[in-house]
Amino acid sequence: MIDICLPGTGGMKPLPNRYLTGLWAEHKGKALLIDCGEGMQIALAKAGLSLARLDTLFITHFHADHIAGLPGLLLSAGNYGKCSPLVIYAPAGGREIIQRLCCICPELPFDISVHEINGRETIFRNGLEISFMPVRHRIDCYCYSIMERRPPVFSPEKADRLGVPVNMRSVLHKGQSIDVNGSIITPEMVTESERPPLKVTYITDTVYFPELSEFAENSGLLISEGMYGEDEFIPKMTQKGHMVFSQSAEIAAGSRSKELWLTHFSPALTVPEEHLEAAKAIFPNTLAGTDGMKKTIT
Amino acid sequence: MIDICLPGTGGMKPLPNRYLTGLWAEHKGKALLIDCGEGMQIALAKAGLSLARLDTLFITHFHADHIAGLPGLLLSAGNYGKCSPLVIYAPAGGREIIQRLCCICPELPFDISVHEINGRETIFRNGLEISFMPVRHRIDCYCYSIMERRPPVFSPEKADRLGVPVNMRSVLHKGQSIDVNGSIITPEMVTESERPPLKVTYITDTVYFPELSEFAENSGLLISEGMYGEDEFIPKMTQKGHMVFSQSAEIAAGSRSKELWLTHFSPALTVPEEHLEAAKAIFPNTLAGTDGMKKTIT
Repeated sequence: MIDICLPGTGGMKPLPNRYLTGLWAEHKGKALLIDCGEGMQIALAKAGLSLARLDTLFITHFHADHIAGLPGLLLSAGNYGKCSPLVIYAPAGGREIIQRLCCICPELPFDISVHEINGRETIFRNGLEISFMPVRHRIDCYCYSIMERRPPVFSPEKADRLGVPVNMRSVLHKGQSIDVNGSIITPEMVTESERPPLKVTYITDTVYFPELSEFAENSGLLISEGMYGEDEFIPKMTQKGHMVFSQSAEIAAGSRSKELWLTHFSPALTVPEEHLEAAKAIFPNTLAGTDGMKKTIT
Repeated sequence: MIDICLPGTGGMKPLPNRYLTGLWAEHKGKALLIDCGEGMQIALAKAGLSLARLDTLFITHFHADHIAGLPGLLLSAGNYGKCSPLVIYAPAGGREIIQRLCCICPELPFDISVHEINGRETIFRNGLEISFMPVRHRIDCYCYSIMERRPPVFSPEKADRLGVPVNMRSVLHKGQSIDVNGSIITPEMVTESERPPLKVTYITDTVYFPELSEFAENSGLLISEGMYGEDEFIPKMTQKGHMVFSQSAEIAAGSRSKELWLTHFSPALTVPEEHLEAAKAIFPNTLAGTDGMKKTIT
């Protein structure tokens, strides 16, 4: 189970009614956050999310609208009682940039370690498998997927058929084999087939390219950027290193994702949900993200 | 005439319903801003103030709640069309800190020059006289006063008495003397007595000390900090380098200011106007500042 929230959905600059793009994901009481533009701590407070639970921060890239909120977020996390270390994953050069920004928050009550990402990679944090892939923006930038692999479901029917006594089934649940009247019963013998993992993919600040669909494959939820709704903006957005709604819909369709939330709207796009037509024609289950939008992925 | 606005009135951290403390002052089409905490650009947009008019920035000190919004503010000012240089006045060490923070906004369309303040000083910007004085906080911190000196008012009665023809009065208006039938008439001979200057004083992040009243002397508007309303918080606030409402009221009374606006409220103080009793007993014309509060000083 992964609890998802979009604290903000704007691109370029924070607005009075729309904070900057990011993704908050909670799993087993610990939270990860992707991106931290100016005002992120306000957006998280507005969405009722506690900075005390923040465990890992991922930065897509070092444009100000994705990082400028870091010093304030760190200070407030400290004031909220965070004292466990914070791990930050960021593109190459991140250690120095983060160190510079932190010159105005020199006395934090927790340690920070910065891991610089170099190319495609998968890491494991708190039971989640997190993958990064470089995207195509004006500077080094990464997209992320968050995956929870799930153990196969226990089958009482199979256990009955093999004569496994009820009081011995908890051992199999824990992944150990047992001896039933001289026959070795393994966990695999009493479970259904593998369940697909829970997967959330987050793509922002990139032009469209086909590998994005492969990266997002089978996402339960794909969160992907769209600066504007109409295809007429494609040339201008491509030049700026961005996409429009229909291009994210292409990724959603191509990746066989279940649902698409659009985010990172241009400040000029005041009502994104009025511009969904082209995207919905390609991928019907498309929603325009809104600040504070939440979902539990199960 | 000086147009004043408090974009935000909070201390420590920005809240969903209260941005961080600052002062925006416009005079003859150019604006100065004191302090720039996280979210300042949102607060200014909410108050309908245009970053294109920003000409000078003053920083009281380098705690994050007074400076973390700088990179975002600079980028947005550029996007709003600002191309004239920005002058920043800040405590010693400011040049390096600002340079570090600006690592995430390296390509601004305007130049920035940073002047480091060292001790009490007065400068002149766009027809305003701006004075700084060191205050007593945990790190180097300054209070500011903004003053518009006004020419004395022309007196038609005095001009009549001296027989100055109407068509020659504009020369006197411009500050030049004229010859009327062999008598030299100077501008001083046809004006009323000197008018007091318009003065706004901004004091934040300091403990109380008597020189603050002297610095704020005769302010038309004194904007001064109060983390809490009740005097029982004085020992704790003094320890943290702050004041409570009644201490700012003492400064207002001692300086013979006309009006006091309180600002820089603790996040724990949800309704500041419910805590004005002690301050109003000392200085009746006390108001709790609110985000977006405006006044034209004439």
